[in-house]
Amino acid sequence: MDSNRREIEVMANLLSSNDRQAEVNRAHFRKHNCLAINVIGSPGAGKTSLLEKTLPLLLMEIHIGVIEGDIFTSKDADRIAVHEVPVIQINTGGGCHLDSKMVSKVLPEFNWQATDLMIIENVGNLVCPADFDLGEAFKVIVLSIVEGDDKPAKYPVIFRNAKAVVLNKMDLETFTDVNMENMKQDILAINPDIQIFEVSCRNGKGLQAWVSWLTEEVKSYRESKV
Amino acid sequence: MDSNRREIEVMANLLSSNDRQAEVNRAHFRKHNCLAINVIGSPGAGKTSLLEKTLPLLLMEIHIGVIEGDIFTSKDADRIAVHEVPVIQINTGGGCHLDSKMVSKVLPEFNWQATDLMIIENVGNLVCPADFDLGEAFKVIVLSIVEGDDKPAKYPVIFRNAKAVVLNKMDLETFTDVNMENMKQDILAINPDIQIFEVSCRNGKGLQAWVSWLTEEVKSYRESKV
Repeated sequence: MDSNRREIEVMANLLSSNDRQAEVNRAHFRKHNCLAINVIGSPGAGKTSLLEKTLPLLLMEIHIGVIEGDIFTSKDADRIAVHEVPVIQINTGGGCHLDSKMVSKVLPEFNWQATDLMIIENVGNLVCPADFDLGEAFKVIVLSIVEGDDKPAKYPVIFRNAKAVVLNKMDLETFTDVNMENMKQDILAINPDIQIFEVSCRNGKGLQAWVSWLTEEVKSYRESKV
Repeated sequence: MDSNRREIEVMANLLSSNDRQAEVNRAHFRKHNCLAINVIGSPGAGKTSLLEKTLPLLLMEIHIGVIEGDIFTSKDADRIAVHEVPVIQINTGGGCHLDSKMVSKVLPEFNWQATDLMIIENVGNLVCPADFDLGEAFKVIVLSIVEGDDKPAKYPVIFRNAKAVVLNKMDLETFTDVNMENMKQDILAINPDIQIFEVSCRNGKGLQAWVSWLTEEVKSYRESKV
């Protein structure tokens, strides 16, 4: 048997099975008027740091739940739990991305009468998570500017499929060779409709614009018709 | 049919087929007395930058070939080609890692009478490449310290399987909250035999120790018995 052909066939089945479960998850979020977002980025881009900074600013008016995807540890979930937000850890046990079935299994753990926003932090990986719909309303990329301005062109799939990108670690801009204009032009060339936020989770600059935008997204999701 | 069971079965077949081809590649490198290394790291860790800085220091005494793994672009290969080193680009077309078959296909492109060291730069990804043996003598990790000191514990598989780790972007240490002692302790807890190099590709600090070590590895490979 041709192993390549079998691999392609199984991958297609996997994705279509993932998509079916993703639609079930999406209907669940819609039913409970909960905006679900899928946060994707490389290891160390600052996904968890962004959540740590975002939660206190959002919590006054929005009820939040968090799903933390990780390969082995619960380090990220521990960092989120101190903010007294309901958080569930998913360990993929080596797997390089979350899938919709993993997410569906933990949904019963949350109180859906009191969740306006579900933040799903994916495994640290800029490649594989792009292919797996979890049932989210949209994807958000976190990209550390220290990774370099060539990254959008090198990893276009995820930029094409995201609604917003948070360019993090702006406090390090002057100490690196990154060309922010090139980076932003490349992002917009791939996806002209994407929202771009320049943020430093370390010194807090730029966070308010991101938080205001996300708050509006939660509200407009609640007001939108099914 | 149970799709999970099929997935596991196909993954096992894939890995074992990959391992068989990896052994063929390994025999090829051995026959030609060429040390092959598999360089792995997150997007933006500085894999290509490390090569750019390493090549001029090595080229005086070592003949080098480079295989550049990338998802879509030839940006990295273009950066390497200016050093007048034979370089072949492999585009995975969306794939998140190189495999041994992709590598085997480009091997005929090199002059094996004049290649002492084959550097294979993998796709930017700290997860998936860890599972796929390419036939290399050993793996080298490039980790940007800006990614944070929790990364070794969160991505242990690759640290367990590597012979050396280059901790890059040391010039940014004072501008971040990274705890280098914690990071190094975590790395050594996972793999007590790993070589650790602290390097700044930007200002050149620490490069000489890495280059000297790699030069010795090339020599001892050539002198080692089959």
